[in-house]
Amino acid sequence: MTDHTELRREILAANKQIPAAGLAQLTWGNVSGVDRDAGLYFIKPSGVSYDDLTAEMLVPVDLETGEVTGGTLRPSVDSESHRAFYLAWPSVGGVTHTHSTHAVAFAQAGRSIPVLGTTHADTFLGPIPVTRDLTPEECADAYELNTSHAIIEAIGDDAAAVANPGALAAHHGPFTWGRTAQASLNHAIICEAVAEMALKTLALNPQASAPAHLLQTHFDRKHGANAYYGNG
Amino acid sequence: MTDHTELRREILAANKQIPAAGLAQLTWGNVSGVDRDAGLYFIKPSGVSYDDLTAEMLVPVDLETGEVTGGTLRPSVDSESHRAFYLAWPSVGGVTHTHSTHAVAFAQAGRSIPVLGTTHADTFLGPIPVTRDLTPEECADAYELNTSHAIIEAIGDDAAAVANPGALAAHHGPFTWGRTAQASLNHAIICEAVAEMALKTLALNPQASAPAHLLQTHFDRKHGANAYYGNG
Amino acid sequence: MTDHTELRREILAANKQIPAAGLAQLTWGNVSGVDRDAGLYFIKPSGVSYDDLTAEMLVPVDLETGEVTGGTLRPSVDSESHRAFYLAWPSVGGVTHTHSTHAVAFAQAGRSIPVLGTTHADTFLGPIPVTRDLTPEECADAYELNTSHAIIEAIGDDAAAVANPGALAAHHGPFTWGRTAQASLNHAIICEAVAEMALKTLALNPQASAPAHLLQTHFDRKHGANAYYGNG
Amino acid sequence: MTDHTELRREILAANKQIPAAGLAQLTWGNVSGVDRDAGLYFIKPSGVSYDDLTAEMLVPVDLETGEVTGGTLRPSVDSESHRAFYLAWPSVGGVTHTHSTHAVAFAQAGRSIPVLGTTHADTFLGPIPVTRDLTPEECADAYELNTSHAIIEAIGDDAAAVANPGALAAHHGPFTWGRTAQASLNHAIICEAVAEMALKTLALNPQASAPAHLLQTHFDRKHGANAYYGNG
Repeated sequence: MTDHTELRREILAANKQIPAAGLAQLTWGNVSGVDRDAGLYFIKPSGVSYDDLTAEMLVPVDLETGEVTGGTLRPSVDSESHRAFYLAWPSVGGVTHTHSTHAVAFAQAGRSIPVLGTTHADTFLGPIPVTRDLTPEECADAYELNTSHAIIEAIGDDAAAVANPGALAAHHGPFTWGRTAQASLNHAIICEAVAEMALKTLALNPQASAPAHLLQTHFDRKHGANAYYGNG
Repeated sequence: MTDHTELRREILAANKQIPAAGLAQLTWGNVSGVDRDAGLYFIKPSGVSYDDLTAEMLVPVDLETGEVTGGTLRPSVDSESHRAFYLAWPSVGGVTHTHSTHAVAFAQAGRSIPVLGTTHADTFLGPIPVTRDLTPEECADAYELNTSHAIIEAIGDDAAAVANPGALAAHHGPFTWGRTAQASLNHAIICEAVAEMALKTLALNPQASAPAHLLQTHFDRKHGANAYYGNG
Repeated sequence: MTDHTELRREILAANKQIPAAGLAQLTWGNVSGVDRDAGLYFIKPSGVSYDDLTAEMLVPVDLETGEVTGGTLRPSVDSESHRAFYLAWPSVGGVTHTHSTHAVAFAQAGRSIPVLGTTHADTFLGPIPVTRDLTPEECADAYELNTSHAIIEAIGDDAAAVANPGALAAHHGPFTWGRTAQASLNHAIICEAVAEMALKTLALNPQASAPAHLLQTHFDRKHGANAYYGNG
Repeated sequence: MTDHTELRREILAANKQIPAAGLAQLTWGNVSGVDRDAGLYFIKPSGVSYDDLTAEMLVPVDLETGEVTGGTLRPSVDSESHRAFYLAWPSVGGVTHTHSTHAVAFAQAGRSIPVLGTTHADTFLGPIPVTRDLTPEECADAYELNTSHAIIEAIGDDAAAVANPGALAAHHGPFTWGRTAQASLNHAIICEAVAEMALKTLALNPQASAPAHLLQTHFDRKHGANAYYGNG
């Protein structure tokens, strides 16, 4: 058993980057991180501003039951969405949800973010997919869980989630994940950046597309068997 | 009778968030808050920069007559527009007016901001409506009051104003309101954010729309009879 | 005779607002102010960054001859453009030139900025006009002076310059003016803001237009015979 | 032989301007500078944040072999792209690569940035060209070197590189160069600014173009035989 000081510190830092990176207004975004040995994840509390947020305020949640295991604050309303990703994909150590402008625009348009260049392919192997619409039944009961289930349906298994660390909930917004809380936050930054680039690319050329061999080269130099490019 | 220190402090803080949130250039925006027991509202003075503004400078105005009841500064030119909302809707405790870029673009285009996703539906039950044009007569006499009357005409009664806390004055810009001055300012931030998202969504998909049951789910989890989602 | 300390201080402050207001990259913008009694105007020196700029560095230029009358720095390459406005319009006390993004976009598109709402009409009575193209002869000799002459041709006399304090040099960018250096800078901020709003309005509604009586009401409440609205 | 303190300081400062000027997210950008007498260039190390970067961390690379000649850090993955420019063009003293949003949009759209006005013509004599696509063979082996070779193919000789100090790698992003590291960074700022202006100009007028004599006048007053305009 640990006191989770370091994990809480990392998750706090990632949450505070949400407004600094311009990914959300008010309190529209949250980051969590998991300790799989302890069977817990820690998530931003609901309704607390990023300025006021401290490491102690992060809410511990049981990975199996979704129950809060400590503290007095309620977890983000999106807590169950985060939990679904941890349960589906063993490689995931952190999850980020935001309402960043351009990613939301694609989500609201019902369009996946296409792979139009190397900025995208450096991190996401394929398009950042938009989910199908939820049914009235899925909205009426366990809505947050069902939001993630539609994403998992669109992404696939753990290996696919590693190669494509983000998706758009239809008419809602982006969810991203990674090996750590910070990685999931970085993927949220990248998702928004490539969404803005894609929207502007499509304004200049509605039929834009990129050669598959160029995209594969970029993905592989960071993530392939012979990767020679770290994180910069 | 009170000295209104706390109310003035809250209204001051909300006014200072106008430039911080990028909602207006120069002095193009103002927030007021009301004390219904005292029959007064306090509003930003005209022509004072947000940097120079202090709580003491806020101008007290009589809710019934529209007359200034203290101090030496003139109220914002929009004072009568604010007053009309307080008189029409008992639930309203604060009003914000800005010239934020994307909300103005919809107002100038003569288009309501459509509900294209959950960011919008979390706060506004329906489209953020644009008013009809004012007549030459309405412009010539009591113009500021008539601006609000056209908004009240588009929104409806007090319950409607609670469910739809904002509107666009045609060819002018957004007015928002809420239970407090800070709530009205938050609604101005949200109005601008969803306007930008909507403009960019429509660029990607001119026929975009969102399923009604998803929107209702989001509105209800914050505002419905069984609301389980506070303000974050 | 005066030492021009106050005038230099005001012109310095206005120049420093160019980067703060996001109106230009690098050193792409300059503000000047005039002392008509002394027959001098003071302008930003060429190639000096806004951070390094001091009041002493501002370059005094003779209003009649265009010759530098003091100091060791060269005036902005646009100095002759500023001088032409002072000579044409007695009411003008300050001039600002920037390369702000959206105003440049209209200038490059060869389109005037149309009056689409009250934000525009509060300050500019009519469209912000784009000039005709300069001839090869006008480019080859006294280019900077001819740039302003095309603007003066588009605007008209002193009264027209007061009512319409800005214009776009075709394929170049905005010039604005006002009774003081600070006023000319404020008009540059407003010109860029209404250009951005207009571009986004036209994306939503290519046929957008605003009722003339609404626009006149707004202009008159700030500038008309019965003006009741100062500068806020 | 020198200790390169001054050169490292300049390259450090230019790298730190990448995030300050909004040209890249995370670590998506790098600046290098060359000492041709020493046969070395210094480049940002891979994966180091701009905040953490110090002059000592800059990686010295042999101009002929591409081998690192000191320190323990790996050079940017783009190091070979920088080297190719130094070898091709003797006048180049610094190189900058970024993923700035609007320049990337043109690169992804497969479109050169057209010369639509004087902001562009002040620095770039012609369009900022986009390269042809790389072949699968060019992607599979010496990809970074081949990226620059395609750019050199599009630009031409040393004189052409001085007159046109930037290009877009297709589906990738901008590379710019100049007589110094700082000059190359300034050209990256200008490339992004004119890309944004061009994108918005084309939205207002898809057939926009500027008279050749106006563009030549602007280029010549900074760069021609009778240049009278320095760098401001």
